[in-house]
Amino acid sequence: MNPETSHDPKRQAPALPPIAMSPRVLLGPGPDMVHPRVTAAMTAPLLGHLDPDFLALMDGTQQLLRYAFRTDNRLSLPISGTGSAGMEAAVASLIEPGDPVLVCINGYFGGRIAEMARRHRGEVETIERPWGEVFGADEVRDALRRRPARVVAIVHAETSTGALQPLQEIAQVVHEAGAILIVDAVTSLGGVPLEVDGWDLDVVYSGTQKCVGAPPGLAPVTIGPRGEAKLSARRTPVDTWYLDLSILQRYWGPERTYHHTAPISLNFALYEALRMIAEEGLEVRWERHLRNAQLLWDGLAELGMSLHVAAGHRLPSLTTVRIPDGVDDAAVRTRLLRDYGIEIGGGLGTLKGRVWRIGLMGYSSRPENVELLLGALRRILRTPEAA
Amino acid sequence: MNPETSHDPKRQAPALPPIAMSPRVLLGPGPDMVHPRVTAAMTAPLLGHLDPDFLALMDGTQQLLRYAFRTDNRLSLPISGTGSAGMEAAVASLIEPGDPVLVCINGYFGGRIAEMARRHRGEVETIERPWGEVFGADEVRDALRRRPARVVAIVHAETSTGALQPLQEIAQVVHEAGAILIVDAVTSLGGVPLEVDGWDLDVVYSGTQKCVGAPPGLAPVTIGPRGEAKLSARRTPVDTWYLDLSILQRYWGPERTYHHTAPISLNFALYEALRMIAEEGLEVRWERHLRNAQLLWDGLAELGMSLHVAAGHRLPSLTTVRIPDGVDDAAVRTRLLRDYGIEIGGGLGTLKGRVWRIGLMGYSSRPENVELLLGALRRILRTPEAA
Repeated sequence: MNPETSHDPKRQAPALPPIAMSPRVLLGPGPDMVHPRVTAAMTAPLLGHLDPDFLALMDGTQQLLRYAFRTDNRLSLPISGTGSAGMEAAVASLIEPGDPVLVCINGYFGGRIAEMARRHRGEVETIERPWGEVFGADEVRDALRRRPARVVAIVHAETSTGALQPLQEIAQVVHEAGAILIVDAVTSLGGVPLEVDGWDLDVVYSGTQKCVGAPPGLAPVTIGPRGEAKLSARRTPVDTWYLDLSILQRYWGPERTYHHTAPISLNFALYEALRMIAEEGLEVRWERHLRNAQLLWDGLAELGMSLHVAAGHRLPSLTTVRIPDGVDDAAVRTRLLRDYGIEIGGGLGTLKGRVWRIGLMGYSSRPENVELLLGALRRILRTPEAA
Repeated sequence: MNPETSHDPKRQAPALPPIAMSPRVLLGPGPDMVHPRVTAAMTAPLLGHLDPDFLALMDGTQQLLRYAFRTDNRLSLPISGTGSAGMEAAVASLIEPGDPVLVCINGYFGGRIAEMARRHRGEVETIERPWGEVFGADEVRDALRRRPARVVAIVHAETSTGALQPLQEIAQVVHEAGAILIVDAVTSLGGVPLEVDGWDLDVVYSGTQKCVGAPPGLAPVTIGPRGEAKLSARRTPVDTWYLDLSILQRYWGPERTYHHTAPISLNFALYEALRMIAEEGLEVRWERHLRNAQLLWDGLAELGMSLHVAAGHRLPSLTTVRIPDGVDDAAVRTRLLRDYGIEIGGGLGTLKGRVWRIGLMGYSSRPENVELLLGALRRILRTPEAA
């Protein structure tokens, strides 16, 4: 080895152990488990981001994304960052400084959209609902009458609350008011019915690590004709270069103009995960997510626990269950992780300490995971540990 | 399978083949090949981004990054995007609207910094050198006398030209003028001497897919005391939320405040790649990169080819060699790829069609790759294909 002659501590090479992660049963808000086929795809030999074989894979990925999004949108591509990068690509690219923007907030991620829209100098107004509830089309119509907006943003599947937001009527209201609609589908794409063209949604983004069934690191985005028109009518460049959809589309379009080095291995994983969605069939996959969620909901009710979201608005991919009185939030989650290798999520924001968040997404959405979690929870709740 | 009853083409699940990539000998400007240990690390079981085991891995990654950067900077972390995301995180976080900024441009990536700095509303001035040359400290001093700046940005290793920029004197000049220095080390970190503390560099970013030896998708960044001070003295929030170092540091700091879902698998790969850097030892690794580059340079000279960059300013990790007169740029690269599975890069910007770019970085920097490329080039140049 290389003997160190200097005494400068930063010149001493750290001797750290190799990675030795314990397998987890991931039933939190994401990342979720990925199928071994997806893990294997990540290990395919690396190649260049302009290699003809990689360009062919990009074409296939776009085709599969259109299927998953139920859209014909030309502009359907993965952003090279996590779901929040997809959110910012949509917000930064579609909102110009001074644009009046309406953001619907009924959870943590609606709040994040508003924060981003302000940073990109939109004139942001918000309407709010308690965390766990959803918006009606009338509320959006009223808000747009009070102050017209050019862009409206809403979350389809609020990962922080477990509420599923109906979108079709709202899209109509938004279009009647001459605005475009940005939709956060991070926790719905690939697991919960989402009809980009059928519901006439303009800009939709998601992440790979939830119902899509791939590791985190990419953010699928799709943009319809109204979004494209707004993008090409911009009078000012997008604030951000990395997340500027108007230049990203030239790398993903027929020009193949170099933009940045795509995360090749993650793109392999996404391609294989999308192939598995196509193999299973979207409708079958949606039914599977709903069936396993219903198993969970019934089982939690048998344990005497109650769900935070009212029936009819529950997200099959993410369930918020109220922490029973007198139960120690952190202690239960620690025991689940330590004794059973199970991860579930704690509450976020106003729901911190009040709910647990249980994800059944992608490859994690399986009956064996539901039974395991219910069994472990039953035992832990009946046999509290000595403090 | 699920029979389709609809005739809507977007409801037809595409039947695409599995990934079947041919192994490539990657000797272009990146991504480069990764060691099998790094590929294997990526397949470790996924866990949550707030799992105690992942938090421990983050600590280890930061420790290893400080070693690779030769710094004690607390703020040393990987951005969840490719090298350009690291560039934008640095530019957007350190430049406030209205800040006078000086960007030194002697290649493609200097130009990209200037573009980003303008988008983030810096008052950008540039000084330029022909592509392939480097800047002297006097030029920077003169430019700062003509117009003082708060931020100066320069590229250490220009991937587009193969020039290696000396930095130590320039850092001194920048600090004497009361400014801070942002350095692009995308193609130097882990392969070419880089002394963040020794040369007193304020903000340095890189990518994982070059000399670091991991797949693309993360961007190591380090920020010293002057950079931290400028960041915390901001009067306005950073334009971008995803790449805002002031909030990212709270996820990577002791608070562990949730920001976004880290690309877990890529972080595994980066950790293992950094462990391999520590095992080999930085000085030994730098020597290896230089030795293999020298082999390549000598071999190209024997083939009668000439290098674009003058001796003394050549980057060991990336060589630009002039395409001989009468030789078809694209045809040679196509034959290298088709007949030998070798990728080298074409010229970028003003050097398009005039040079090839040959990378010897990380696990790609091996004598067997040099001999293979020289042998293949010799044969192709001596036996041009019929048109």
